[in-house]
Amino acid sequence: MIEQTKPARPIAAIVLAAGRGTRMKSELHKVLHPIAGKPMLLHLLDSVEVLGAERQVVVVGDRREQVEAAVAGRADTAQQAKQLGTGHAVAQAEAALAGFAGDVLILYGDVPLVRPETMRRMLDRLHGPDAPACVVLGFRPDDPGAYGRVIADADGRIDRMVEFKDASAQERAVTLCNSGLMAVRAEDLFALLSRVGNDNAAGEYYLPDIVMLAGQDGRASAVIETAADEVDGVNSRGELARLEAKWQAARRARAMADGATLIAPETVWFSHDTVLGRDVTVEPNVWFGPGVSVADDVVIHGFSHLEGCSIASGAEIGPYARLRPGADIREGAKVGNFVELKKAVLGAGAKANHLSYIGDAEVGSGANIGAGTITCNYDGYLKYRTVIGEGAFVGSNSALVAPVTIGAGAIVGAGSVVTADVPSDSLALARGRQEVREGWAARFRSVMKARKAAK
Amino acid sequence: MIEQTKPARPIAAIVLAAGRGTRMKSELHKVLHPIAGKPMLLHLLDSVEVLGAERQVVVVGDRREQVEAAVAGRADTAQQAKQLGTGHAVAQAEAALAGFAGDVLILYGDVPLVRPETMRRMLDRLHGPDAPACVVLGFRPDDPGAYGRVIADADGRIDRMVEFKDASAQERAVTLCNSGLMAVRAEDLFALLSRVGNDNAAGEYYLPDIVMLAGQDGRASAVIETAADEVDGVNSRGELARLEAKWQAARRARAMADGATLIAPETVWFSHDTVLGRDVTVEPNVWFGPGVSVADDVVIHGFSHLEGCSIASGAEIGPYARLRPGADIREGAKVGNFVELKKAVLGAGAKANHLSYIGDAEVGSGANIGAGTITCNYDGYLKYRTVIGEGAFVGSNSALVAPVTIGAGAIVGAGSVVTADVPSDSLALARGRQEVREGWAARFRSVMKARKAAK
Amino acid sequence: MIEQTKPARPIAAIVLAAGRGTRMKSELHKVLHPIAGKPMLLHLLDSVEVLGAERQVVVVGDRREQVEAAVAGRADTAQQAKQLGTGHAVAQAEAALAGFAGDVLILYGDVPLVRPETMRRMLDRLHGPDAPACVVLGFRPDDPGAYGRVIADADGRIDRMVEFKDASAQERAVTLCNSGLMAVRAEDLFALLSRVGNDNAAGEYYLPDIVMLAGQDGRASAVIETAADEVDGVNSRGELARLEAKWQAARRARAMADGATLIAPETVWFSHDTVLGRDVTVEPNVWFGPGVSVADDVVIHGFSHLEGCSIASGAEIGPYARLRPGADIREGAKVGNFVELKKAVLGAGAKANHLSYIGDAEVGSGANIGAGTITCNYDGYLKYRTVIGEGAFVGSNSALVAPVTIGAGAIVGAGSVVTADVPSDSLALARGRQEVREGWAARFRSVMKARKAAK
Repeated sequence: MIEQTKPARPIAAIVLAAGRGTRMKSELHKVLHPIAGKPMLLHLLDSVEVLGAERQVVVVGDRREQVEAAVAGRADTAQQAKQLGTGHAVAQAEAALAGFAGDVLILYGDVPLVRPETMRRMLDRLHGPDAPACVVLGFRPDDPGAYGRVIADADGRIDRMVEFKDASAQERAVTLCNSGLMAVRAEDLFALLSRVGNDNAAGEYYLPDIVMLAGQDGRASAVIETAADEVDGVNSRGELARLEAKWQAARRARAMADGATLIAPETVWFSHDTVLGRDVTVEPNVWFGPGVSVADDVVIHGFSHLEGCSIASGAEIGPYARLRPGADIREGAKVGNFVELKKAVLGAGAKANHLSYIGDAEVGSGANIGAGTITCNYDGYLKYRTVIGEGAFVGSNSALVAPVTIGAGAIVGAGSVVTADVPSDSLALARGRQEVREGWAARFRSVMKARKAAK
Repeated sequence: MIEQTKPARPIAAIVLAAGRGTRMKSELHKVLHPIAGKPMLLHLLDSVEVLGAERQVVVVGDRREQVEAAVAGRADTAQQAKQLGTGHAVAQAEAALAGFAGDVLILYGDVPLVRPETMRRMLDRLHGPDAPACVVLGFRPDDPGAYGRVIADADGRIDRMVEFKDASAQERAVTLCNSGLMAVRAEDLFALLSRVGNDNAAGEYYLPDIVMLAGQDGRASAVIETAADEVDGVNSRGELARLEAKWQAARRARAMADGATLIAPETVWFSHDTVLGRDVTVEPNVWFGPGVSVADDVVIHGFSHLEGCSIASGAEIGPYARLRPGADIREGAKVGNFVELKKAVLGAGAKANHLSYIGDAEVGSGANIGAGTITCNYDGYLKYRTVIGEGAFVGSNSALVAPVTIGAGAIVGAGSVVTADVPSDSLALARGRQEVREGWAARFRSVMKARKAAK
Repeated sequence: MIEQTKPARPIAAIVLAAGRGTRMKSELHKVLHPIAGKPMLLHLLDSVEVLGAERQVVVVGDRREQVEAAVAGRADTAQQAKQLGTGHAVAQAEAALAGFAGDVLILYGDVPLVRPETMRRMLDRLHGPDAPACVVLGFRPDDPGAYGRVIADADGRIDRMVEFKDASAQERAVTLCNSGLMAVRAEDLFALLSRVGNDNAAGEYYLPDIVMLAGQDGRASAVIETAADEVDGVNSRGELARLEAKWQAARRARAMADGATLIAPETVWFSHDTVLGRDVTVEPNVWFGPGVSVADDVVIHGFSHLEGCSIASGAEIGPYARLRPGADIREGAKVGNFVELKKAVLGAGAKANHLSYIGDAEVGSGANIGAGTITCNYDGYLKYRTVIGEGAFVGSNSALVAPVTIGAGAIVGAGSVVTADVPSDSLALARGRQEVREGWAARFRSVMKARKAAK
């Protein structure tokens, strides 16, 4: 990742996000579908932020209230009431950028994984040799298909850009395609756009026309290239899944390069913000939701589902551990199978190894939470806290009715329902007395066998 | 999928399923091994049914009792006592088709994923140009290997069919192979078969010989082609896994195209009859067993295992939810981690979020089932029902001993063992009283440390 | 797998394991990272043992205490204090092999999956035509890249070996590469090594130089080839994952060939020692840790995590079953969801179907363990046993406080905390009495609603 630095010239980004995304078949706007747990659009805004952009304008249209809500507080929006082409869409951002003097990046909400490095290369080129009017980001797909072509010389000086349907056979043989992404000086952008016409079959205003118009003014434009998969777009859930897969593959490779063992990397899913230490071992089938941070020397067994939690060094997690937001697992602690933690500290060296629910709780270091322990933290209206002291031992199958405190070193007898605080170093029992009825089971069996036979 | 329609001419299908399938190394007959939860043979019968076939004859041999049981009530069977070749096998169906006048499809129980569309194309061709005597389904595999070759002209008129071992170098260079599938008029089929001889190295009666015999009568046969992977056969568990993978890949693509988000499509397994709504999100690692129906706007978290259940819109399932047959999750309800439901209604907006077993039960809308709740529905002989009213609150770690009713709006205190009905709006407590022994734990520790040291 | 046999001549193996493995970014020595649950180095030692080698010397250096501990009792070690090249490393083994007269295999701890068959081919070649001085194992990678090349004639007679950086364009065009593995007679090996110099840019003693030195003595060496992926090395966690994947793919194929159904083979992970019967069905997402043995006709549902356990024929496991070391599941028994067993026998036909922890226990045949049953086997210091007799019925949500015995045919009432032995055929109840407070819940709701509103 490149460092965020103050750029030489001010940068603004216009992100087009007005399109409907019909093929997604979704009530959710296309650009809000997540990759690695973060909406596509926010991947772009985050990248632009790394670049140090001072202005971000998202052009909205269809379901704009969803998009506006998603970017509220971090980007301006401009509305495109009718979808009259990419040129028209970009032009809608003019008012929002009034007074802005600097460079403008034109991006697409559904092309979310363009790297800041590439954006910076585009901007650098804009101020490079010959100071081109526009910088176009090109790519060479395996199958150029129906993409628009960029006709340029070996130095990337653009002769012309052609839509596929207007291209001659010779032009179609060109493999350099137009990603749609551009970098243009603000002062050029809107002046050129004002001259773009819609005299074509679709009656649309095409953004690439500004390259031609600048050329008419005697100003050349330039193309730079990037890898085809960086400008992959999302038009369907299948394409969304492919981008997710690509993102995950890259993240897994990075995790391994940084010193984590992923026994079966293809079965580990990370979020955009997962932090992983060194000598962490991850068994197959682990899900890292947003907000997970794992220190060194942690073992995460399979079938674990982690989200919004922190795991300190030397801890052992799972299998089948469910850590929910606010789970804070301290050094060397153990969370075993079928155990759920939520808003709960598990102190250093403490253990909750089996079939437990620990919510809204603080478990002291070295404490032992027996199998089947439940913190009863909710009465249907409010949540209450359970505090378990250092070195306490909670016997199996206990229910701790919060608010309640188990003192340090206290023992709760198995099967207890604890409703009052337990002093330190004491024993609490809260269970029924055992009663035995000799021969009862034998009689019951004869009755039931007869009853079942009669059925 | 094509619509089931009444065909122009009656259709019968003969499905060969006599072979042993030695390479499967299984006590189960090869054609009964399932793909997507349905035996291979039934995939074929279902496809034939879509075509509107009025007769289905399965030719059985090895372990015929297994196959007969599997098709009982929906297909006739004909026994092939000795395995004397494909021609001999088809001939065994003659008696079962006595009196049938129409077209016959010849299919193979271990080539299960042939589509009804392809079968219909074969039948259409039978009555197409030149009205061929036989229609052969051909394919072009990546590696034609030892498949029999179909020597035909550009219009699909067959000159001859050759077994690989009898083929000349020139014939082996032909890439069009014989899948074995055929369409023949019933009146032709058995007449031609009666003339097939077994004068070959293996002493077998070969079905493709009928093409040659028809040719001797001056009647041409035709080949039509299909994609190689549609006629993939299963001879080993490895090949079974490959067909399963292919089926799953197609089904996942369809789910996404229809508007479901599969974050990691390759980790979601569907059954032949899974129904999935729009804007359903499925996290990685979800298993849909047979009989699952999911409405719109449902989120299914990872590590969920669903079977025979219905999930209404807006519900949230898992992670680690186990829904077994008869689980009926209503609008907006939530099933959380380590929760199993079986023959149980979870009412609209109700929640069973943690570590529970709800079986043979009805949970009213808006009810809250606390962590660790168990419905005790079985006494070793019979099963009993638990009814929980609307808006009831069952405290954590409770055991509800069925038959029992918790009234609407009632509260069950945490850790209770409920053995008698609880009236509406009342509180039930059924647990021991808490007792504390001060200092006991400290004394216990000294004793145990000494004892452990002495060991 | 080849049979272990007594070889014609004594065999020794020298395994180089001194290198740092910096790219692993690990505190654990590279050769101790596991594949299929077994450290790479031990994969090699096991293969050498199959060959019947009588001596094994591991050359250690960096973090040698880790490596020495790992091979203690089964291999000698020799220390390479400074890393002065492969020739130098092998030479360190001389003292450890003092008095050994036979053939020596030179292997690499980070090239772990070389098969015994290949090693044997190397040794056979050493005593084959022309009795070469050295046998080099060559391979032809897809991309020969910077590997050293082996210049040899069609019969494998080596002309010379060249490091890539010293190779001419013509030599670089040779696709046969040097894996580094060699077979040499002990008497030759150390004599030749003593003549290897370090007059090169790196100042290192190169093992391949012995081929040149033998040539100077008029003794030819020979190369034999093997598949490139057999000599894949591990220098990073990414490469480790690739070898793991390759190992798993081969193991899965073998499981299927032997008669197990893996619905999604790519989601089943085996250990080096997993034993699997015939007609075993494994659903997607099952983890076999070390020490698992599964008999015929077993069904293992998805999301199961097995380790150190034995499963008898006809048993049904999972989904979400966690079997830990010492779990012994007998004929036809059932372990259901969210159930953990550890050091526990589950008798023939017995069932533990839901949400249970059974540790340090013996469950008699035909017994039924109700949902939510916990064996309380630990008091913070010692572990205690629970014995459950044949045909006993343990009601749901019971806690069995060990040491305790439930007699044959006894019934434990749901929700009981059993602290004393239960005689056979009797009923034990140990729970609180139910108490109902009419109208309490309604009043509670009004209070809480007000309180919540006030917040």
